[in-house]
Amino acid sequence: MAVRVGVLGATGAVGQRLIQLLDPHPDFDLACVTASDESAGKSYREAAKWRIEMAIPDDVAEMTVRRTDADDIPDDVDLLFSSLPSSVGEAVEPGLCEAGYVVSSNSSNDRTADDVPLVIPEVNGDHVDLLEVQQDERGWDGALLKNPNCSTITMVPTLAALDREFGLDAVRVSTLQAVSGAGYSGVSSMEIIDNAIPHIGGEEEKMETEARKLLGSFDGAEVQWHDADVAASCNRIPTLDGHLENVWADLSGDVSTGEAADAMREFPSPDLPSSPDPLIHVFEEPDRPQPRLDRMHGDGMAVTAGGFRETSGGVQYNCLAHNTLRGAAGASVLNGELLAEKGWV
Amino acid sequence: MAVRVGVLGATGAVGQRLIQLLDPHPDFDLACVTASDESAGKSYREAAKWRIEMAIPDDVAEMTVRRTDADDIPDDVDLLFSSLPSSVGEAVEPGLCEAGYVVSSNSSNDRTADDVPLVIPEVNGDHVDLLEVQQDERGWDGALLKNPNCSTITMVPTLAALDREFGLDAVRVSTLQAVSGAGYSGVSSMEIIDNAIPHIGGEEEKMETEARKLLGSFDGAEVQWHDADVAASCNRIPTLDGHLENVWADLSGDVSTGEAADAMREFPSPDLPSSPDPLIHVFEEPDRPQPRLDRMHGDGMAVTAGGFRETSGGVQYNCLAHNTLRGAAGASVLNGELLAEKGWV
Amino acid sequence: MAVRVGVLGATGAVGQRLIQLLDPHPDFDLACVTASDESAGKSYREAAKWRIEMAIPDDVAEMTVRRTDADDIPDDVDLLFSSLPSSVGEAVEPGLCEAGYVVSSNSSNDRTADDVPLVIPEVNGDHVDLLEVQQDERGWDGALLKNPNCSTITMVPTLAALDREFGLDAVRVSTLQAVSGAGYSGVSSMEIIDNAIPHIGGEEEKMETEARKLLGSFDGAEVQWHDADVAASCNRIPTLDGHLENVWADLSGDVSTGEAADAMREFPSPDLPSSPDPLIHVFEEPDRPQPRLDRMHGDGMAVTAGGFRETSGGVQYNCLAHNTLRGAAGASVLNGELLAEKGWV
Amino acid sequence: MAVRVGVLGATGAVGQRLIQLLDPHPDFDLACVTASDESAGKSYREAAKWRIEMAIPDDVAEMTVRRTDADDIPDDVDLLFSSLPSSVGEAVEPGLCEAGYVVSSNSSNDRTADDVPLVIPEVNGDHVDLLEVQQDERGWDGALLKNPNCSTITMVPTLAALDREFGLDAVRVSTLQAVSGAGYSGVSSMEIIDNAIPHIGGEEEKMETEARKLLGSFDGAEVQWHDADVAASCNRIPTLDGHLENVWADLSGDVSTGEAADAMREFPSPDLPSSPDPLIHVFEEPDRPQPRLDRMHGDGMAVTAGGFRETSGGVQYNCLAHNTLRGAAGASVLNGELLAEKGWV
Repeated sequence: MAVRVGVLGATGAVGQRLIQLLDPHPDFDLACVTASDESAGKSYREAAKWRIEMAIPDDVAEMTVRRTDADDIPDDVDLLFSSLPSSVGEAVEPGLCEAGYVVSSNSSNDRTADDVPLVIPEVNGDHVDLLEVQQDERGWDGALLKNPNCSTITMVPTLAALDREFGLDAVRVSTLQAVSGAGYSGVSSMEIIDNAIPHIGGEEEKMETEARKLLGSFDGAEVQWHDADVAASCNRIPTLDGHLENVWADLSGDVSTGEAADAMREFPSPDLPSSPDPLIHVFEEPDRPQPRLDRMHGDGMAVTAGGFRETSGGVQYNCLAHNTLRGAAGASVLNGELLAEKGWV
Repeated sequence: MAVRVGVLGATGAVGQRLIQLLDPHPDFDLACVTASDESAGKSYREAAKWRIEMAIPDDVAEMTVRRTDADDIPDDVDLLFSSLPSSVGEAVEPGLCEAGYVVSSNSSNDRTADDVPLVIPEVNGDHVDLLEVQQDERGWDGALLKNPNCSTITMVPTLAALDREFGLDAVRVSTLQAVSGAGYSGVSSMEIIDNAIPHIGGEEEKMETEARKLLGSFDGAEVQWHDADVAASCNRIPTLDGHLENVWADLSGDVSTGEAADAMREFPSPDLPSSPDPLIHVFEEPDRPQPRLDRMHGDGMAVTAGGFRETSGGVQYNCLAHNTLRGAAGASVLNGELLAEKGWV
Repeated sequence: MAVRVGVLGATGAVGQRLIQLLDPHPDFDLACVTASDESAGKSYREAAKWRIEMAIPDDVAEMTVRRTDADDIPDDVDLLFSSLPSSVGEAVEPGLCEAGYVVSSNSSNDRTADDVPLVIPEVNGDHVDLLEVQQDERGWDGALLKNPNCSTITMVPTLAALDREFGLDAVRVSTLQAVSGAGYSGVSSMEIIDNAIPHIGGEEEKMETEARKLLGSFDGAEVQWHDADVAASCNRIPTLDGHLENVWADLSGDVSTGEAADAMREFPSPDLPSSPDPLIHVFEEPDRPQPRLDRMHGDGMAVTAGGFRETSGGVQYNCLAHNTLRGAAGASVLNGELLAEKGWV
Repeated sequence: MAVRVGVLGATGAVGQRLIQLLDPHPDFDLACVTASDESAGKSYREAAKWRIEMAIPDDVAEMTVRRTDADDIPDDVDLLFSSLPSSVGEAVEPGLCEAGYVVSSNSSNDRTADDVPLVIPEVNGDHVDLLEVQQDERGWDGALLKNPNCSTITMVPTLAALDREFGLDAVRVSTLQAVSGAGYSGVSSMEIIDNAIPHIGGEEEKMETEARKLLGSFDGAEVQWHDADVAASCNRIPTLDGHLENVWADLSGDVSTGEAADAMREFPSPDLPSSPDPLIHVFEEPDRPQPRLDRMHGDGMAVTAGGFRETSGGVQYNCLAHNTLRGAAGASVLNGELLAEKGWV
């Protein structure tokens, strides 16, 4: 039977992608959408400035937008997907969990908190059991699960594949990120046409910390972060969707480019509706992946990689994922699927 | 008295920039332009599809384009600036040197040959004396001097500043390169709009080898290449001009970001007409340099840097230069100025 | 039973779109692909630089590319879709028709010839009967049918809707055309980034003549061209796909914007597999249609319109269609469907 | 002796262009900058997010930003350049004029008011004498002069040239407008990359009304608007600066394209510092003017034209001007120069 779900912050860029993914979802039944107080009471059609290439689903268009507040969310909703701004997420997510809702959140608040699991199902799905510790410590009936930042999600599956086979010592990663990562009005056209911006506030720190938590091990009580030395350099470029990343991975032993590529190709994918199989598609062509050509691989949920070269410490390669699908809305939905599979909703 | 100069391959993208820089030059008098046989005999106005924002200089517009051949170049021309395709450069440059011309070349052929100096005047101007070895070995009356590839030029001054102060061990560099680096029709709009291409044929190898030659030492007989471990990852993005690069530099000792930035700020600039003072402009703002805003620093001849962060091995930072001015046409002109100062023309 | 078809000029931008549309077509069975002599003998995968977001269909990828020559095309192929350069089309299409093939051609040669029907099935499907005149006059067993230029196709359905209801006197149309209209390497990125080009060679004349032929009437012997006064101004802008057009239509009587929009909404669509119903989608929002958001309406085969305003002579409005689907490959396929329905293949 | 001037709304996109033009102006001495209350009290460097390719002038950078209020503006300032949002302009400009300041305003409020001159000095400089009527009617010591909207300024000089020689009956104009026309954050990158937007709120009406006021005649008491039938269609495209426009001008008699071009070439330019001579540059090349190549003609103050074709009613052609220089900041400065020449300041 379908789980009844809601979307918090449903009118924003990631919220719209959540609607796109949930409207025809096999396991979830979209029952409520919330937004800021100014939007509450309007139809979703009125409240959302819909920007996705497909038409807005009719049934969602007619839904009345609710306030992002436990009192305004129906009791029979079990699972909430959150794409709230982090300051709002910080203010309202704990109260919703206390009120009994399970929240699968894309908001950046609390991602590195000790008792909040940060999860990519294909990489560290077992971390979800940290929710038991969370409920004990916080006395919640609900639970709070986070997915990482879009630029982190892009590289971590490839790093996990290398780490398991060869042992990961250090990472240097340079990103070429799409404008949709900053939300609908995050990057003005006057800033970015014929330009690139070598700075995205807080992004480098997110990649450096979240990657180590995701690659860490969970012993039933706490997550031991991976001790790899990770340094990131983040850039915004004039692309709409799809984060491209150049990675140098220093590995424990000698690894050929073929071995590295094979480790990625063979990285397993769990049996969840939104997880593509294979998770990582490796290109032979040296000029791939490219954002526009490859971001929709696996319906926007795959990671693609290519351009392998040997270096003194290991390998270098490029990887790509769709930042608002695999990197945000799809990541939250996938975590929701994991929660359902594990019986949390 | 002005040196009479010519431009080989004058109709291409870099050739046009050479015209732009030479038309009003204090020391050089532009006396001839050459191009392919199809263009020979036409006026420069007819032969060149002029694409620079300034108008084509009137006197150059009326020049008759000559064949790229010693027989068709006036004898009283001393110095030739070459922006020929590398295959053409390889075929004709040696013959011109044998015929007595001094060639300051931007073409990629022969850059790593033992007896061909590869020079950025601010970095390794002393390597120009390798021309004596060259003339001895090849029996030439003329001489062949090369400037490096545009993406190499962008980072090497910053690396030289760090190397002199702190000792350079390793470099990881990721580039965000403008389309003009591929020439006028090098990158089609269907390839690059809303996209990025993580591959530029041969570019990574050029950066990795040329950097080590430039940072090497010349002992009067040969160039000892620097032994730093350099690995590059090159990307094309939808910008018109200006290559932006993310650099991780591993240094021999502990270096603060302030010390690294100061080393760049204080890197000396020789007294040549086209060398800006300071050579390297360091921004305090974390989101600079940006291609569109900063590529024209120092009339397009400066390197700009910013975004310094400490890493486990040294520092990371971003740098930028105008790829067809500092990185190509301006590099050749500057080398011509060095040749003039040292008495080679 | 499926008609066996071939694609002439299959490796180009429009050729790839033809493959995309024909691979799963209900009525057509793709049996051969041709290209230039350099490509002949290679697999299609090798010969085509595949640029479409979907993967190349496996069975097509393995086809051997043939020469564009009657001798090299299997006899059991009935219908050929041609996206040849117009000079090649002019040289080879008549011979193929003489050899008995029916050719549905997107190439611009012969579009205004007296005995060559120029057809948009929804607008002037009856003109296809001009093929009887053509076979009589030329003594062909085969036949040659043309679809118009992409920028013409975009506006003509909207003009036909207005003409039938109100009578069309004059048209002024300004186009904002995507780069894919010029083919894969037609517009260099250095030309078009941060720019627009107010000239596309021959395009204005094509729109002015083709529109009048399409809107004309066929009396069984010849096409009487429409006598509307049509003037076009054509611009290239930095979009990938989708031609947007601003139209001023002078009409015979007083027409409100609502009446004009209704005439378009109610314009009939024939029962052919690739013709969307409705053909013309009219937006209420004043800022639509937009190329990126709306080009895929009706699987890329719809025309969209909006922004209606009354003027002194009639109405002004905007219209949009996908230039390589509705405007080129899809137009040829749709004409092929019409040929099949009418028994020509 | 230099006139002391101030800039109202100095931190915005047009305000920055005003600083750029006024800092080295021969006749004006920049003495004060104002902005919103949040910016007041800060240094200009702090308050303005400076976005122009040149560095911010040092003396302006250190100025303290004042409130946009007569009490906070020094008494010895005579002339104020206003680039306020129109709602703010409407609220504060009359009070400033009452307080004795002469205001040269780019804000769109009051442009069509009967006693407010709307002026392009080269076109209708004599309308400035309407200020006498204004002072009489409003009892002001100061005065309020407006320049038109950027898209109007681009075409009106070309229309004036045709009207004087041949008589102008009707205009159809389609615009391809740059994103800077909407201000720094007016157009988000997610809206405009790989796209065009066929709607700019109120822009079409501005062009249609302002053009007729500018082309009208002033009889000493009031402006008789020109009775040409003007209809505009406005589009935003992904260019940074420079509005390109396709114009169809219906003229009273038969006019050849050569005669039309000559009328533009010979259109006189007054002797004011910021007015280029010639005002209108006509290209022979059919693919010019183009925004990126031609927007800086005449230091960004020229209008360029090209692409002439004969039509049934007159001529069609393209024209271009830099929208934030000739079309906004430069227009206001030029009007200030006219005020100075005529003794109003």
